[in-house]
Amino acid sequence: MSSASAKKAAIGLDFGTESVRALVVDLEGHELGEATDAYDHGQILDVLPGTGEKLTPDFALQHPTDWIDSAVKAVQGAVKAAGIDGEQVVGIGVDFTSCTMLPALADGTPLCLDDRFAGEKFAWPKLWKHHGAKTQTDRINEVARERGESFLSRYGGVIGLEWFFPKMLETLEEAEHIYDATDVWLEAGDWFVWQLVGGDAKELPRSTCQAGYKGMWSAEDGFPSSDYLAALHPKLENVVEEKMPGRLCPPGSCVGGLKPELAERMGLPAETPISAAIIDAHAGVPGVGAAEAGVLVMVMGTSSCHMLNSHENKTVPGVAGIVKDGILPGFYGYETGQAAVGDAFDWVRRLTGQDDFHTLTREAVELPPGSEGVWCIDWFNGCRTPLMDGRLTGQFTGLTMNHGPAHLYRAAMEASAFGVRWIVDMLKENGVPVTRYVASGGLPHHNPLLVQIYADVLGEAIEVPASKQGPALGSAILGALAAGPKAGFASAEEAVKSMTSASGETKLVEPISEKSKAYEPLYQQYRKEADRLSQQT
Amino acid sequence: MSSASAKKAAIGLDFGTESVRALVVDLEGHELGEATDAYDHGQILDVLPGTGEKLTPDFALQHPTDWIDSAVKAVQGAVKAAGIDGEQVVGIGVDFTSCTMLPALADGTPLCLDDRFAGEKFAWPKLWKHHGAKTQTDRINEVARERGESFLSRYGGVIGLEWFFPKMLETLEEAEHIYDATDVWLEAGDWFVWQLVGGDAKELPRSTCQAGYKGMWSAEDGFPSSDYLAALHPKLENVVEEKMPGRLCPPGSCVGGLKPELAERMGLPAETPISAAIIDAHAGVPGVGAAEAGVLVMVMGTSSCHMLNSHENKTVPGVAGIVKDGILPGFYGYETGQAAVGDAFDWVRRLTGQDDFHTLTREAVELPPGSEGVWCIDWFNGCRTPLMDGRLTGQFTGLTMNHGPAHLYRAAMEASAFGVRWIVDMLKENGVPVTRYVASGGLPHHNPLLVQIYADVLGEAIEVPASKQGPALGSAILGALAAGPKAGFASAEEAVKSMTSASGETKLVEPISEKSKAYEPLYQQYRKEADRLSQQT
Repeated sequence: MSSASAKKAAIGLDFGTESVRALVVDLEGHELGEATDAYDHGQILDVLPGTGEKLTPDFALQHPTDWIDSAVKAVQGAVKAAGIDGEQVVGIGVDFTSCTMLPALADGTPLCLDDRFAGEKFAWPKLWKHHGAKTQTDRINEVARERGESFLSRYGGVIGLEWFFPKMLETLEEAEHIYDATDVWLEAGDWFVWQLVGGDAKELPRSTCQAGYKGMWSAEDGFPSSDYLAALHPKLENVVEEKMPGRLCPPGSCVGGLKPELAERMGLPAETPISAAIIDAHAGVPGVGAAEAGVLVMVMGTSSCHMLNSHENKTVPGVAGIVKDGILPGFYGYETGQAAVGDAFDWVRRLTGQDDFHTLTREAVELPPGSEGVWCIDWFNGCRTPLMDGRLTGQFTGLTMNHGPAHLYRAAMEASAFGVRWIVDMLKENGVPVTRYVASGGLPHHNPLLVQIYADVLGEAIEVPASKQGPALGSAILGALAAGPKAGFASAEEAVKSMTSASGETKLVEPISEKSKAYEPLYQQYRKEADRLSQQT
Repeated sequence: MSSASAKKAAIGLDFGTESVRALVVDLEGHELGEATDAYDHGQILDVLPGTGEKLTPDFALQHPTDWIDSAVKAVQGAVKAAGIDGEQVVGIGVDFTSCTMLPALADGTPLCLDDRFAGEKFAWPKLWKHHGAKTQTDRINEVARERGESFLSRYGGVIGLEWFFPKMLETLEEAEHIYDATDVWLEAGDWFVWQLVGGDAKELPRSTCQAGYKGMWSAEDGFPSSDYLAALHPKLENVVEEKMPGRLCPPGSCVGGLKPELAERMGLPAETPISAAIIDAHAGVPGVGAAEAGVLVMVMGTSSCHMLNSHENKTVPGVAGIVKDGILPGFYGYETGQAAVGDAFDWVRRLTGQDDFHTLTREAVELPPGSEGVWCIDWFNGCRTPLMDGRLTGQFTGLTMNHGPAHLYRAAMEASAFGVRWIVDMLKENGVPVTRYVASGGLPHHNPLLVQIYADVLGEAIEVPASKQGPALGSAILGALAAGPKAGFASAEEAVKSMTSASGETKLVEPISEKSKAYEPLYQQYRKEADRLSQQT
């Protein structure tokens, strides 16, 4: 603590799939306190709350009340852990999974919290991993290709199954009365920020990051044209004007002040400046201090998003999005991703009846590259980059009765590493340089073997920042930017530099050259098998 | 019991992979008593007894002392359970896994029981599933094809990795001093019968069944020629004369009387007639009362052997053996097989961390044909019929994070059923009629879901005999035949008919037509994927 006065601090709120984390950081980057709160309803995958209706396997929902309640508890906990006074907080940043989206009424009430609709699954927020919009995604792509829509080139030529318009169109086609009753379609991150700052739906702050990467929006062209939307479904023609009100705000800009009611529950000053939301993965880029071009920031969690800022504006097949100023001002922000990473390993753990990862890890470490003949394609939740196809499925092959759970586990990690290598090769081959590798998120800290396998397969050193708070710290930095003069940073770069300067020593994981050599032919074989499998489906 | 006098009985000894079972049956087929004894050393898969040397995964050995000790205990237990006097036993039949084989000295001592060799893994009996002879099998096939050896046509054109000569040649090439020190190479079943009856090595009784199906022997041509054997390895030229002494005896023929020492340990009369050995699976054919052509007897255990007697002598690709009078006199006996059945399901159980099959079965029953998209090729121990390639490996594909252990389990059972269907199609397409299906062995009783899936996939009713003693009962029938006038049967057919007449009611498992319909395209897809996988390796 400065002796002169109580230090100023910012809060980053990092909304994950299972829980929200709050991080209190001072403006020199000292992490003062944090707290995590798990959502009461977690992921809603099996049955609808209340009715007990069984959900099909492609459904993945969340409960909007969880977001508010868990955020309040996490902020209270983090402020308490930091030992500061709430008055010291000058700004709040928010990152959120995306595209997690919901239908709401004009006053912001989620449709699922209205008694008329609570018993209907399409009234509930769809989690990013909801995969119900398969046929809609096909048509969205088909019509876009037929019409030669220019937005396609920003997304590697393919609109993803998990994005905003597919999820909205699914509801229109499967539950038209829910679509009709909806006044506002919006991202969950935007909904949460709207709840913090209040105000009329016409002025609700929508994140340019979420709109750019998941909503087919660009600063130049806006959302897709009404001609295109009408070609998808007559009722969609004017959906942007009629059911997507709001103003588009870049992350780090102040969209308003904290409403008194929530300020009281959180123990923070009313009117604390709030930043526009950012996608959780994208928040990781400032969070690890990456402010230059060519740094691949691998934000690794249940799924992985690999972010890269570049001076190059190139069309790269299968890239999930290229948005100007989408991550940091002054760069083209590339987003790529893998649909199942920590989730996939946890599924292998459950599938093999293990209570935890101890035995799996101990045995997997001892196995050589190639897992003694076991091969994996890790498309257990589809393939994001480069194929953008949520319908693809995973496989284990080369199996004999001498193999056990650890073989499956190591093979799944190797497949994940081959997937990253594939993404890096795609970027480089299309003229987007990649010069440094940073592994962020919780997974690299829990799973050092995974980082080593990544380094060996890439044949490149990987930096693992000491802070586990990548996205949460990035959000806090955006919160400090939103505070404007109260925080006093002259630029985003200055804020990033200052607030990541105290993050502790970065661990460098070097590739082991004989393992890299062993992985080279295995990677080529993986590419061949991936080609075959994707063409077969 | 007859009031006139104590009934006559025969004993069948059924040597499996983990244990031996003894069954006491009277001559009208009443099962009077049985007992099973697990081998003290079970399967030796990980480390060599005594030295603790770690074995490579392709090794599978057994301990010869286990066979004697467990047989003594099982006979004692079965006679006691039957409540008879040992004096009532008129004959003993023996079935054994094959090709389980060993090197011995001239007096019958297994090399591994000689102090000079006990510490060497190649001195130990190789269990049927030992897969160390891959390169030798390749050369045995290559040289046979080059020379146009006529024996190939009896084995579907391929000599198997698990057979007698590959295993012997492996030892010659990997541990030549062990080969040199060996006086007698022989099947474990023949070794056990030799221990029962004693006598000089020159007269040791070798089973025509084991020699015919696993030793490339036929009544017309004998063993492979010394020219062929010399082409494999100079030292093999005269191996048949020098290291394979004995006389070839058909199952059911009396090869001698029980030696006093073992008679005393077993509690049976000295000089009880002993039948030549038979392969365990083949004993199942008389054991289920199948004495006519066209009955596919599926003996299902850790692996499966599917036996068929036919009037047709046809060349069928991938059939594991066609031996005249190999199963019952007057027929061409066809042997086909699947390398991993119960073993594969047990591996899936262990892989998925299940203590038993209860949960797996309960959940798998509820899944539809096709296991909700999970696909399996069950070559976890290679593929026997029709591809005869122990190097092939298994796979699971179509996997998503919504799948659990029961999906893998059901998919493995479906793959097993597709494998049987493939065998049946091969037989029929090549002019060998198949008109009835009998499921024998322990597995059909433990796993009714598996039998139902087989029936659905075949689109045919499957008979499940009430007796679980298929091979043990078949062995007892051969024991009664060996007893000659003491038992009083005029022919093998009469013995089969009489001694299976009391086996209880046969259960008929009918196919469910809508499931059969659903499996048809899935089977075609399995054939396509099996073709692709086998060509890839």
